Amino acid sequence: MVDTMDQAPVFILCRPQLGENIGACARVMGNFAIADLRIVAPRDGWPNPAAETMAAGSAVLTNARVFETLEEAVADCHMLYATTGTPRHMIKPVMTGREAMGEIRGALAGGRRAGVMFGAEKSGHSNEEIARARAVISLPVDPEFTSLNLAMACGVLAHEWRADEGVPQGWSPMEAPASQGELDGLYGHLHDELDRAGFFYPPEKTPLMTQNLINIFARGGVTSQEVRTLRGAIKALTLGRGKARIVRED
Amino acid sequence: MVDTMDQAPVFILCRPQLGENIGACARVMGNFAIADLRIVAPRDGWPNPAAETMAAGSAVLTNARVFETLEEAVADCHMLYATTGTPRHMIKPVMTGREAMGEIRGALAGGRRAGVMFGAEKSGHSNEEIARARAVISLPVDPEFTSLNLAMACGVLAHEWRADEGVPQGWSPMEAPASQGELDGLYGHLHDELDRAGFFYPPEKTPLMTQNLINIFARGGVTSQEVRTLRGAIKALTLGRGKARIVRED
Repeated sequence: MVDTMDQAPVFILCRPQLGENIGACARVMGNFAIADLRIVAPRDGWPNPAAETMAAGSAVLTNARVFETLEEAVADCHMLYATTGTPRHMIKPVMTGREAMGEIRGALAGGRRAGVMFGAEKSGHSNEEIARARAVISLPVDPEFTSLNLAMACGVLAHEWRADEGVPQGWSPMEAPASQGELDGLYGHLHDELDRAGFFYPPEKTPLMTQNLINIFARGGVTSQEVRTLRGAIKALTLGRGKARIVRED
Repeated sequence: MVDTMDQAPVFILCRPQLGENIGACARVMGNFAIADLRIVAPRDGWPNPAAETMAAGSAVLTNARVFETLEEAVADCHMLYATTGTPRHMIKPVMTGREAMGEIRGALAGGRRAGVMFGAEKSGHSNEEIARARAVISLPVDPEFTSLNLAMACGVLAHEWRADEGVPQGWSPMEAPASQGELDGLYGHLHDELDRAGFFYPPEKTPLMTQNLINIFARGGVTSQEVRTLRGAIKALTLGRGKARIVRED
């Protein structure tokens, strides 16, 4: 992921109030490898110990830059986005986070720098800040409860930036599913033992009962190892209670 | 959005430690209209004043239910997802948030109830909790900085649940773009006034200079009102300094 870090959008916090929120923004930006945090006129000055605590060691906070004005903070950006849930009387495209991140991806690939701005906690963006933006990002919040925490808005958009990258490396791939031959071996084994035990009664219902049993395993996802486990379980059951352990020690 | 609230996944916090995180989860669930929060064995008991403070009035916290065991909490769910960034030696499908939410949407439409589980802050999910899940959700975090805050993980997935819904209602639609006739009127007006002012020099470059000017406005997005504003600006400029105000008062 490191090779794409310079290719991420810039996040700009406009007049943030709580150090806790600044730190939480830096932490979640680090989680999703968005490196460039710019802070405009933080209410409680800078540095801010509460921000450091909440950043949980994120290098994004260490490298954050503080500016007195928004103009200075975004001078090198080619396109700006404002985030707000509050409609304004302004002619401006309105995008979901997904749409905006798609557009930013294209712009960055073309060598441009894109900035995503976040307004202050209580008041949100000023109209002057929004006017500067090429578009507004508005998240699909419940109109009955729109008050999204500042760091949460950063987090949602930070994840949205990476959301198309798929799952992280390091997970063992799913084991190969059992072949149809292995499954048929299981079905035959189960059928034979159940038949021996008198399970299929009345006899004319045998085909339907067999089909229902097969259906349980046929839905997919049973692996070769799991077929072996199931066949071991059938074998143990046929030997009767208390004898399985002896068999498994053979 | 209210009519789909019952159609959202259930979020289950397994052994959460900090009331602040429980409250922040409830708040962001409320933001994205996910109503059903279940809390399994919260470390600091229940109710928890820190949770109430951070929930910022979210009804999700008021309606949250507390259980002693995960078994009780998820007994009515038909499919469970565990969230973790830490690979385990377990045979289990691994999905992005987007993939999982797509699958859950289909399951809910089919009348099933889906639960998304979140592990404790420090340790994450136990292997026993993960084993119960149909699949693991793993977010595309930077392998160098995987420590995602519990509430942030809830928030990212809560947003992912709604992310396809588009922008909220209430924004004025973009004003209609100017017609090509209006734009051509602007181009002609601008060309005539610049020609009168001696802008096109040398004369043989006039076509190229005109083309370059047109290009600035042809990229799209200029509205009818903006065409009128630009034509007013041209008119004002041709009248010379200080006279525009008088004209506008006419």
